[in-house]
Amino acid sequence: MSRPLDFQITATENEARAATLTTRRGVIETPVFMPVGTLGTVKGIRFEELESPELDARIILSNTYHLWLRPGIETIKACGGLHNFIGWNRAMLTDSGGFQVWSLGALRKISEEGTEFRSHIDGSLRFLSPEISMEVQAALGAEIAMAFDECAPGEATREEAQQSMELTLRWAQRSKAAFEVAQAVSLRPPSQDKETQTDSLRYRQALFGIIQGSSHLDLRRESLQRTVEIGFDGYAIGGLSVGEEKGVMMEVIESIAPRMPVDKPRYLMGVGTPEDLIEAVARGVDMFDCVLPTRNGRTGQAFTSRGKLNIKNARYALDQRPLDEDCACSVCRRHTRAFIRHLYQSGEMLASILLTHHNLAFFLDTMKRVRQSIRSGQFAKFRREFTEQLNCGLES
Amino acid sequence: MSRPLDFQITATENEARAATLTTRRGVIETPVFMPVGTLGTVKGIRFEELESPELDARIILSNTYHLWLRPGIETIKACGGLHNFIGWNRAMLTDSGGFQVWSLGALRKISEEGTEFRSHIDGSLRFLSPEISMEVQAALGAEIAMAFDECAPGEATREEAQQSMELTLRWAQRSKAAFEVAQAVSLRPPSQDKETQTDSLRYRQALFGIIQGSSHLDLRRESLQRTVEIGFDGYAIGGLSVGEEKGVMMEVIESIAPRMPVDKPRYLMGVGTPEDLIEAVARGVDMFDCVLPTRNGRTGQAFTSRGKLNIKNARYALDQRPLDEDCACSVCRRHTRAFIRHLYQSGEMLASILLTHHNLAFFLDTMKRVRQSIRSGQFAKFRREFTEQLNCGLES
Repeated sequence: MSRPLDFQITATENEARAATLTTRRGVIETPVFMPVGTLGTVKGIRFEELESPELDARIILSNTYHLWLRPGIETIKACGGLHNFIGWNRAMLTDSGGFQVWSLGALRKISEEGTEFRSHIDGSLRFLSPEISMEVQAALGAEIAMAFDECAPGEATREEAQQSMELTLRWAQRSKAAFEVAQAVSLRPPSQDKETQTDSLRYRQALFGIIQGSSHLDLRRESLQRTVEIGFDGYAIGGLSVGEEKGVMMEVIESIAPRMPVDKPRYLMGVGTPEDLIEAVARGVDMFDCVLPTRNGRTGQAFTSRGKLNIKNARYALDQRPLDEDCACSVCRRHTRAFIRHLYQSGEMLASILLTHHNLAFFLDTMKRVRQSIRSGQFAKFRREFTEQLNCGLES
Repeated sequence: MSRPLDFQITATENEARAATLTTRRGVIETPVFMPVGTLGTVKGIRFEELESPELDARIILSNTYHLWLRPGIETIKACGGLHNFIGWNRAMLTDSGGFQVWSLGALRKISEEGTEFRSHIDGSLRFLSPEISMEVQAALGAEIAMAFDECAPGEATREEAQQSMELTLRWAQRSKAAFEVAQAVSLRPPSQDKETQTDSLRYRQALFGIIQGSSHLDLRRESLQRTVEIGFDGYAIGGLSVGEEKGVMMEVIESIAPRMPVDKPRYLMGVGTPEDLIEAVARGVDMFDCVLPTRNGRTGQAFTSRGKLNIKNARYALDQRPLDEDCACSVCRRHTRAFIRHLYQSGEMLASILLTHHNLAFFLDTMKRVRQSIRSGQFAKFRREFTEQLNCGLES
């Protein structure tokens, strides 16, 4: 196809949308949850499991910042791009590194040109800019790349948030320009550039713009309007879930998502719990990523249809029930809370493996049910019932 | 079946034997390698993978010592025995704890009665004896239990080795007597003992005796003869791979294995590398267990058909080949050395998961080829070719 993405809405219910997002590497049904594969691996789970009908993850996210530092872009280029390097043949999205370097706090210095920072691995001084991020993301070769942005903290004043938003807009312009250059380079015929290009990278990526503005709704709307004016293949809401109140987050989503271009994917970055996802879908969001299912899995927390379960709790020592009695995943079909608690208490890797699997299964299955409910006009009902059950709690 | 095990030799080639070992939980083709599941989990791999046609592990080993300390036998009893607790429905063998408490070195004190030791977890004082080991193993409920033995170090003097062997023989007598009592208890009709028994434990286990004697061949032969006189369902060679020279180990195996009862399984405990396994099969051994494929997998070492590969080595940074070019396992079909090295260097759990999977696949596939070659009268040829290729090295 000539365009990098094809986005077709197939059903709506109020603001909620079901759509198909077609990429070079398969069709993604939205609303979709993207497991986070920071370093080219979704921690604790094999790709075979992610591809299995039980999970069926159609797209994963990888981190430009982390992969740029380790193993480094020359390695990934030499191995034919990120898909080839890691052995994942489905779609991928790479973030720009903007959020990661911002998260370094005292270790980074932001200027007009870009962000100077010290590597969290070896302390070496590094510099990331829109141009470098685009070049790195082109070498990674994900189907979707992200503009290089600056994030403002949740409690930013209006002035701070405005400055940050203006910088993000200037970086968005530079991202787009650099992206076009990188695309042109990667699309040059092989004969001209035989040694550094591989066929697997020889196709057009999509670039998403990122809306910032902290919790200030007027800035958010301005950011949206001016980002759309620059023109991207999709749009993301950034800078949420960074310390603000949950009510503030939902207010921003409610105010922004429905105003985002109706014919492009809408991506809420770094959010969130299953209930956050459903509430954001109700406000028109199509795409999500979050480390919660994987990270919390490694620290002993299971997401269930009745809320969170902390497997460390002594009450589960003899509990013969699965993590979630309503879950049909392979972990819940086979293993008890008592066994998984024993594994966790013993420091066994299998605890993380099983909890990660279940959590991803729960997130991905929830999104599947969200899509089905939108298509059958039952999303409002699903949302109500899901939330009610979640609020019942595990012990009821 | 009335007997706990049925052992039928199906083919022989010189001393090497192929046989079927039928248990309540499935048929095991021997020679067989048992992955080690210390705490009720084979570290870093899910049971679904162990059961897959690719690995098809028919029996795993679990550790009485470790499970007795954590989660404790009351928990496992309350969960209906070890199979139920961990969700593994195929055969299991439990060791007696003798080797583990012996390994504690300065932390244990051995007397006629048994071994007093401090728990490696909380330092609490504990006591393990033939009677306690049999009771614990009955509660675990594996298809095969092991007699409680004492191990002598590889460099033991004749006198030390003899004392140790004599103690092991007295403990073997006590193990057998206590085992019969425990079996009688677990086989009592449910009405008499409703609260502590579950159906999953209500069957007859098998008990193997263990031959000791360090590197002293005359003691080994005496140990064999007197252990057989006591009478067990199978016999194991213990006390090898504990610091002695490899040549000494093979000498003991060569001297003992062919003299072991021809109609019972012969089990070589805690051994070894793929070449050790093949050499021991050539001397008449049927069963093996070893932590090498799992433990070395977690420390970055792959076993391949051309020898060991240390994935940490910088030479693999851009290596696009699989761990083993002759391996058809799911890891080798999908992932490169470069990627697995990146995972290992980044501290990613997936490095351990993939290396463990490949190593187990390599061990289990090697044993499958051993069985096939014995059945087709080609074992000598297989042994020669396997060893030649191994000695070629990875870089040839």
